[in-house]
Amino acid sequence: MRGIAYLLGAVVLLSGVVVYMAHASGQADRNAAPIFGVKIPPGYRDWRLISVAHEEGKLNDLRAVLGNDVAIAAYRDGTLPFPDGTIIARLAWSYVPSEENNKAFGRSQSFVPGPQPDWYLQFMVKDSKKYAATGGWGFAQFDKDGKPADEAMHKTCFPCHEPAKAGDFVFTHYAP
Amino acid sequence: MRGIAYLLGAVVLLSGVVVYMAHASGQADRNAAPIFGVKIPPGYRDWRLISVAHEEGKLNDLRAVLGNDVAIAAYRDGTLPFPDGTIIARLAWSYVPSEENNKAFGRSQSFVPGPQPDWYLQFMVKDSKKYAATGGWGFAQFDKDGKPADEAMHKTCFPCHEPAKAGDFVFTHYAP
Repeated sequence: MRGIAYLLGAVVLLSGVVVYMAHASGQADRNAAPIFGVKIPPGYRDWRLISVAHEEGKLNDLRAVLGNDVAIAAYRDGTLPFPDGTIIARLAWSYVPSEENNKAFGRSQSFVPGPQPDWYLQFMVKDSKKYAATGGWGFAQFDKDGKPADEAMHKTCFPCHEPAKAGDFVFTHYAP
Repeated sequence: MRGIAYLLGAVVLLSGVVVYMAHASGQADRNAAPIFGVKIPPGYRDWRLISVAHEEGKLNDLRAVLGNDVAIAAYRDGTLPFPDGTIIARLAWSYVPSEENNKAFGRSQSFVPGPQPDWYLQFMVKDSKKYAATGGWGFAQFDKDGKPADEAMHKTCFPCHEPAKAGDFVFTHYAP
């Protein structure tokens, strides 16, 4: 058992080195968001729920906000600013009526996730040194195929989040 | 290390026995839902996300649907009927505008979770033998203080879910 544990430890360490080398190579990566270099974190769809929301207007979506373990702990403890290592994921789906649910309810009232819009996936990654110029946060947006939005779009992230400075530039509150 | 592992194993086993004895005692439990005897499963707020929704009308809520590991695996694999051990949790919050978000967007469009309504928390628990009379599902509803809804309310659960028979009586689809 102990041998296997050491072996697993070595594999984990080695994986870390490979990831770091890929990151440090500095080559353009079409899977990384412009400006911030953020990539889609593996396993984000398994993260725990922070909250949900509905945006009307041009967005017209239903959204869920998930957090990695660092994010969830910070939210539950009320830790501000969020510690380095925090990653917050925002998933969005188009807002569509559910005919199936409406039939069961006997009236038209139920709205559920439809297809993913172009702004399907967003991340905020806390690294207070690397992203010092943008409140300590790196921002990223991807479509459902994992393609990052363009540089112009990523220039809008921090200015839009600046009004939420009191909450460390994060709009979403934890839903108990 | 091995000693600690054995000790932990013994504690886990013992906990199981205690839980089973409490369950088998058959005494009325004011924390258990009427008819089905379902209690709030520990740790449900840490479960993974299945989907989100908005209900208009009298409900006027935002909701998130979470699943235990059995539920998430079944959803992702498309397993129907859901296997015994599946638990699906539905959390609901009142639907309120976010002044903070609307300011940032420059228009009134953002709706977020407010206080929990009386129907805050619902569970569907799959046990095809125990709940054979109701499609294999036990149903439960609790308010934010963990108080189960009354028997009359619990009598409405299965009839309402019957139209979703093709999906094993579950309305919610997985949001990718």
